[in-house]
Amino acid sequence: MNEGYKDLGFAKLDLDRKERTGFAEVVFCEGKEEEYLKKIYKNIFDEYGEVFGTRASTAQFEAVKTVIPEITYDKTSKILKASKSDKTLIGNIAVCTAGTADIPVAEEAAQTAEFFGGKVFRYYDVGVSGIHRLLAVKDEIAKANCVIAVAGMEGALASVIGGLVSNPVIGVPTSVGYGVGAGGTAALHAMLSTCANGVATVNIDNGYCAGYLAIQINRLAVKAPGEDYDGNR
Amino acid sequence: MNEGYKDLGFAKLDLDRKERTGFAEVVFCEGKEEEYLKKIYKNIFDEYGEVFGTRASTAQFEAVKTVIPEITYDKTSKILKASKSDKTLIGNIAVCTAGTADIPVAEEAAQTAEFFGGKVFRYYDVGVSGIHRLLAVKDEIAKANCVIAVAGMEGALASVIGGLVSNPVIGVPTSVGYGVGAGGTAALHAMLSTCANGVATVNIDNGYCAGYLAIQINRLAVKAPGEDYDGNR
Amino acid sequence: MNEGYKDLGFAKLDLDRKERTGFAEVVFCEGKEEEYLKKIYKNIFDEYGEVFGTRASTAQFEAVKTVIPEITYDKTSKILKASKSDKTLIGNIAVCTAGTADIPVAEEAAQTAEFFGGKVFRYYDVGVSGIHRLLAVKDEIAKANCVIAVAGMEGALASVIGGLVSNPVIGVPTSVGYGVGAGGTAALHAMLSTCANGVATVNIDNGYCAGYLAIQINRLAVKAPGEDYDGNR
Amino acid sequence: MNEGYKDLGFAKLDLDRKERTGFAEVVFCEGKEEEYLKKIYKNIFDEYGEVFGTRASTAQFEAVKTVIPEITYDKTSKILKASKSDKTLIGNIAVCTAGTADIPVAEEAAQTAEFFGGKVFRYYDVGVSGIHRLLAVKDEIAKANCVIAVAGMEGALASVIGGLVSNPVIGVPTSVGYGVGAGGTAALHAMLSTCANGVATVNIDNGYCAGYLAIQINRLAVKAPGEDYDGNR
Amino acid sequence: MNEGYKDLGFAKLDLDRKERTGFAEVVFCEGKEEEYLKKIYKNIFDEYGEVFGTRASTAQFEAVKTVIPEITYDKTSKILKASKSDKTLIGNIAVCTAGTADIPVAEEAAQTAEFFGGKVFRYYDVGVSGIHRLLAVKDEIAKANCVIAVAGMEGALASVIGGLVSNPVIGVPTSVGYGVGAGGTAALHAMLSTCANGVATVNIDNGYCAGYLAIQINRLAVKAPGEDYDGNR
Amino acid sequence: MNEGYKDLGFAKLDLDRKERTGFAEVVFCEGKEEEYLKKIYKNIFDEYGEVFGTRASTAQFEAVKTVIPEITYDKTSKILKASKSDKTLIGNIAVCTAGTADIPVAEEAAQTAEFFGGKVFRYYDVGVSGIHRLLAVKDEIAKANCVIAVAGMEGALASVIGGLVSNPVIGVPTSVGYGVGAGGTAALHAMLSTCANGVATVNIDNGYCAGYLAIQINRLAVKAPGEDYDGNR
Amino acid sequence: MNEGYKDLGFAKLDLDRKERTGFAEVVFCEGKEEEYLKKIYKNIFDEYGEVFGTRASTAQFEAVKTVIPEITYDKTSKILKASKSDKTLIGNIAVCTAGTADIPVAEEAAQTAEFFGGKVFRYYDVGVSGIHRLLAVKDEIAKANCVIAVAGMEGALASVIGGLVSNPVIGVPTSVGYGVGAGGTAALHAMLSTCANGVATVNIDNGYCAGYLAIQINRLAVKAPGEDYDGNR
Amino acid sequence: MNEGYKDLGFAKLDLDRKERTGFAEVVFCEGKEEEYLKKIYKNIFDEYGEVFGTRASTAQFEAVKTVIPEITYDKTSKILKASKSDKTLIGNIAVCTAGTADIPVAEEAAQTAEFFGGKVFRYYDVGVSGIHRLLAVKDEIAKANCVIAVAGMEGALASVIGGLVSNPVIGVPTSVGYGVGAGGTAALHAMLSTCANGVATVNIDNGYCAGYLAIQINRLAVKAPGEDYDGNR
Repeated sequence: MNEGYKDLGFAKLDLDRKERTGFAEVVFCEGKEEEYLKKIYKNIFDEYGEVFGTRASTAQFEAVKTVIPEITYDKTSKILKASKSDKTLIGNIAVCTAGTADIPVAEEAAQTAEFFGGKVFRYYDVGVSGIHRLLAVKDEIAKANCVIAVAGMEGALASVIGGLVSNPVIGVPTSVGYGVGAGGTAALHAMLSTCANGVATVNIDNGYCAGYLAIQINRLAVKAPGEDYDGNR
Repeated sequence: MNEGYKDLGFAKLDLDRKERTGFAEVVFCEGKEEEYLKKIYKNIFDEYGEVFGTRASTAQFEAVKTVIPEITYDKTSKILKASKSDKTLIGNIAVCTAGTADIPVAEEAAQTAEFFGGKVFRYYDVGVSGIHRLLAVKDEIAKANCVIAVAGMEGALASVIGGLVSNPVIGVPTSVGYGVGAGGTAALHAMLSTCANGVATVNIDNGYCAGYLAIQINRLAVKAPGEDYDGNR
Repeated sequence: MNEGYKDLGFAKLDLDRKERTGFAEVVFCEGKEEEYLKKIYKNIFDEYGEVFGTRASTAQFEAVKTVIPEITYDKTSKILKASKSDKTLIGNIAVCTAGTADIPVAEEAAQTAEFFGGKVFRYYDVGVSGIHRLLAVKDEIAKANCVIAVAGMEGALASVIGGLVSNPVIGVPTSVGYGVGAGGTAALHAMLSTCANGVATVNIDNGYCAGYLAIQINRLAVKAPGEDYDGNR
Repeated sequence: MNEGYKDLGFAKLDLDRKERTGFAEVVFCEGKEEEYLKKIYKNIFDEYGEVFGTRASTAQFEAVKTVIPEITYDKTSKILKASKSDKTLIGNIAVCTAGTADIPVAEEAAQTAEFFGGKVFRYYDVGVSGIHRLLAVKDEIAKANCVIAVAGMEGALASVIGGLVSNPVIGVPTSVGYGVGAGGTAALHAMLSTCANGVATVNIDNGYCAGYLAIQINRLAVKAPGEDYDGNR
Repeated sequence: MNEGYKDLGFAKLDLDRKERTGFAEVVFCEGKEEEYLKKIYKNIFDEYGEVFGTRASTAQFEAVKTVIPEITYDKTSKILKASKSDKTLIGNIAVCTAGTADIPVAEEAAQTAEFFGGKVFRYYDVGVSGIHRLLAVKDEIAKANCVIAVAGMEGALASVIGGLVSNPVIGVPTSVGYGVGAGGTAALHAMLSTCANGVATVNIDNGYCAGYLAIQINRLAVKAPGEDYDGNR
Repeated sequence: MNEGYKDLGFAKLDLDRKERTGFAEVVFCEGKEEEYLKKIYKNIFDEYGEVFGTRASTAQFEAVKTVIPEITYDKTSKILKASKSDKTLIGNIAVCTAGTADIPVAEEAAQTAEFFGGKVFRYYDVGVSGIHRLLAVKDEIAKANCVIAVAGMEGALASVIGGLVSNPVIGVPTSVGYGVGAGGTAALHAMLSTCANGVATVNIDNGYCAGYLAIQINRLAVKAPGEDYDGNR
Repeated sequence: MNEGYKDLGFAKLDLDRKERTGFAEVVFCEGKEEEYLKKIYKNIFDEYGEVFGTRASTAQFEAVKTVIPEITYDKTSKILKASKSDKTLIGNIAVCTAGTADIPVAEEAAQTAEFFGGKVFRYYDVGVSGIHRLLAVKDEIAKANCVIAVAGMEGALASVIGGLVSNPVIGVPTSVGYGVGAGGTAALHAMLSTCANGVATVNIDNGYCAGYLAIQINRLAVKAPGEDYDGNR
Repeated sequence: MNEGYKDLGFAKLDLDRKERTGFAEVVFCEGKEEEYLKKIYKNIFDEYGEVFGTRASTAQFEAVKTVIPEITYDKTSKILKASKSDKTLIGNIAVCTAGTADIPVAEEAAQTAEFFGGKVFRYYDVGVSGIHRLLAVKDEIAKANCVIAVAGMEGALASVIGGLVSNPVIGVPTSVGYGVGAGGTAALHAMLSTCANGVATVNIDNGYCAGYLAIQINRLAVKAPGEDYDGNR
């Protein structure tokens, strides 16, 4: 393992990652065979005492449970994890959704940030078709170090929030929609084309990536310059 | 001409249209050869005493002027027309733009509606990146019989207005933008995917179509049920 | 609730909407979990004595029935509603389809307009491949305050109707088709590119949006200028 | 030349083609260097006493004129040809356009068919936005052995004609249009998705291909079964 | 029924079509409800003594059988028909496929042409990856009045055949393929872009349309000019 | 101006923005008429004593110079600005490019960050086709609070850097490329699909947006939590 | 069979292929009916004593087993084959994957090359998000006559390897990914747009084509110029 | 320069490349400023005594000539190079085009291979619309170690050649075409979807990449296994 990874044959675990980036490797479960997944989870868990994965199925949860009894599964976010219990969540990350159907993606983002030590505030169903709902909470949202705006359909939420706050906004287009909005491309293109300043975009439904970026930004915000930070504390 | 059109060989003027729809034929000038255009303009002008065309070039203006001295040309909207001077504009049509660059398309819409007798109110540069600018005029906009929302880039303006007013909103995506927003497709898809109620969409940069729809709706609003209406009064 | 909405946590009901727009909030059922949907339906029903939703499944119908026994479900249109029985339908809205397969989308449009008080006339299977079928009813269609043209495949119906009537036409492309017509994009692009005047377009299969626009236009037509109107009478 | 072609190095003239297909090779001029084009034209002209090419520029016309003085050029269709003068045109091919802007493509089709001996009847500006113009000539069009329907924008003309006649209709989408109709894709997809029977489609702006197909079909129609036919008589 | 159609409410049967085009209405079964389909089949069968439909399912076959016991169903082509038994097939239509997987679409084309009286010759699995297979039969194919080239993947078959024969070639792209060839778009675009002369294209998997065009062309070829023809003899 | 903006008729300057976000409004010059641009620049300059705009042309530079003599123009980045001279640049922002052709976009990003007070380090031409060039500077890049990765063609640079550093990476796809890479879509999709953690993406060629996000993140990093920050110091 | 193929009616087996290309015909099983497949497998097996097919299902395996008892099936690669047992594998082909999910496509490539006599070395899970894993094996990979780089998502692996080795790299984009990366288009476009030299690309998930190209290249490398080679030795 | 590159600030010359891959760095001239280009050319020329670049303009040629008088420019291929005069060309590379318009791309490929020491045979204008032209030379083409098939429009040439030869075929789609074939996407997708074995594809118009791959393959073929090879001999 002197190359910084552990070779399982079908996979090379990047055990150097925590050293390099501050956060341990996260498992993308979708499409991984159960036997492979069990070995990957077990190896990471044995190394760090915790493990975090996204896009897991119920069947994968059952399989991993046979090797890590303390594993837990959240149906909404599809997150499969064994997490240390004594984490102190710090900073301020706002996670907003346009509608109720965007909640699963938002939860993937929120729980990722929480696993790595971030304090998350949720603002759900504040889409622009009834903008008074967003305006009612805008002062709270503006306090966040980083705002995650999760929206499908026309994805206008990211633009409107981008015009209201001073810290970075991460737009997460979702595949909620139909017709030209099906699959999330309309929302993605809208967020990339935003007229607002300070809006970055991630791939469609990629709540994980948004949560990861938010925790990176939050980490920079909560520590004094030069100070160290442990994402898994 | 008993079939309801006048055959010029290269074109068949639809002289039955005013009878059928209440509004005379409008000329789409783009790409028409000057000799053809002169004949088309002259025939319509002789029939009705006025004529209206869109997407004209300066060269086309000069050409048509040789046969209709009273023709006028507006560089911003590219409208080429000879209009009766004694029109009374009635009703209430709001034309809004997200930015300054959307004004040419907005003017095509506004002047089309005005040519057919509609009273137009303009609200320019009220895009969502600084939403206080839109909120400051929302009560005025809400009085319109029909609102035209002209926006490029992410086109969020149509959705936000759609959530604020009770009458129909016509979204006009513009080709203002670059990258994935180039050509107006991002704005078009956003408007079609809107989460707001009562938003219809027209083709990219099609200010004329929006103006025409607005005047149709305005006509229904200003006359009492059953009453007649002359779009060119 | 002084902000104009009721916060259910997973959703913020826009109870201010009827005040703002004249029509109460409509529920988009697709993809909503049954427990959420039951609470949303119950809250709206308790507030207004009626409730209307689109794209519901049979399972959702069964779930909502447990909290609102008078709820009804129409399999063709997938509309799930509890409607006051004493409505007087007024005005004139024409709903046309190109083929038999477009009927579900047409019914979503028609029943939306009817729920909000509009009188609807249906003209089904009048597509352009046998244009004598359309020409046989064109005088009736021309009497409508607003015409909804529902068509898949090449979507030519909207253009042809647009050339025949004087009031606004709302084109609804449907996902009926295959090959390059699959998913409805060919019909959508055809309607947006129409050479006819006065055709607005909505998203693919979005019968609801067309019905909503039609009732807005019909409302402007049936009341005298300045007069009030109750969409739910 | 026993392989059935003449090798010019930069090109291999398919002199076997007339034997194989009944019609000599046609030159696609666009993008060919003038020196190459002169040699190609001269070789074909020397072989057959006539030569026909499409998409030529004025500069190419001037260049070819230096080697074939009797060459003629038509600016509208961009056809560059030297044609035998004593051709008898037979059969019946109808060429229709939706608008005036579609005429250049229609002329490429019509003149191709005429060069190979077909009798062509032109019906221009009969688009569906004023369908009475098409209905006025439908009985004449229905007599053709093959109908070419040239249309940009939403391309509905091909579908409507397809429903009115009994012989094959060849749809030619044109690049006339803007927004989603720009480049001709909307018209192409509409024609391919047509609900009418007996509509074949060719590439956007490909008048030549339509003219060639029409003359093939016309040839089958005008000769008795088993009889020979000389496309260049 | 003086308008030339029979109104079933959910459908308007175009009983004028045989008069107008020489061929009776064909039923597109896909997506039609069984109760509707039974009525449509029964009405056409009662009118003509035969009926022909495409894209039917086994369940639809069972349903229609309850009202027309003599109905037959072909699983490969998905054609559901009751056909008069004494037809004389005339002319010459060649149906070629690139591979074995293209046979279902080819059969839809071939059986359509046969139903309307055409004599069909089949050449299956003659794709260009082993071009000696095609060259071995090219002289036979060249005798056809019309050649149908059915191919998925890169669709090169239509171009190669187009270069070998003198009568029209109808390219039918199929959805056989994967990656960029999935859904048939690569084959469609290749056929539309063909460098060969005399190739028309139809929508992806649209064997019916190709068969219909072939029978129209075959009809023109087999009758002497001016002579009448009964497509259903 | 109590609404927080200054209304110039054709534009509504968002003078509230600096208050709201910490950074004053930036002018997007592209496509703005010179007369409009002069007024916009003059108003902002008079308000703040400095002004910054992107995508300006030489002609626009000349025009604005007539009203602000101290304006300067950089041809590479197309930035047109008048900047206070005594700024102290702080923090650490790394701007990397894959190739030489990506430098204009990189400079737009770098100079935006510098205008708002960030210290920028440039690493140009470190693309993955010779990865030793990137590995030679990776330790320096890893010190940045935020890394901007600018790349066209296949855009792999963002992914590789994402795997090497611990702070956020902002991917900027450029329109450098041809064929399927033309216009920047291939690079955009690659960056959005990255397998690396902590990569956000902005629109194609949108150096400004990347620079703005970087300065927001840098601001959070350089100040102690709770401390104030003046972006224009 | 003097034309070089065996005609089974539904298929024409290209028995001339081994003569022509050095490798016998391979069966693409997907979508072939079991009865057809059994006959195709049996004929090839009888001719050569071995047979190789890709994209087979378990059901197809069971069917073919009834006619070729020695047939074997590999679930990961979906390869269905009966292979001679005494093959000597020669040369050096490297097969690399970015992640674990790309292994099925990689195995299709590797086993194809092995069936035709190539020696294959596998390097799995060496994607660029942890580039130290790739750098650790780069000297081994550089020894291959041909490198196959299999990657989904952003497909950066092909570019990075292309910059490290001197022999040809074949990029195989996989459909592993979601959002804009779904279906493999992002990886395909990235590989085609690569800034590295010597990278060829095949269709998405087309491991077979990559394996075939690799064995062709390996064959050229392992034999002395002019020497013969038997791919199936 | 101990990192293996020479840092010019705006560029980092990969002087390690010849060591690593056997071939020196090639300059992609398009879009590079003349001052930059002169320095890049001069540095490479000074290092190796020769230099090779693609996609150069006449103006760039004039600029580079001022620092390297012996530089030569070929207008057809747009190659700008100073090449050692005593190269011995070895091996066998076939470069084929479908039409005359594909020659510029073919020359870029051919001259790249020649610069690096390959012997090239050219077969131009052998497209499939007259397949006897290709069949006449197929035995010669089959002798090549690698065949480059350059074609626009429907790109069928690569598939047909792929079925005729035993060594690798590299398909180069060109942007020659219009309508759906415009820009080369139809040809690209056809080549990627090919039903033939042993066809690799490169980006549209990327003759350079094809020439580079061919020379890599040719190098493996001409040397005995284990033997060294100097690409610039």
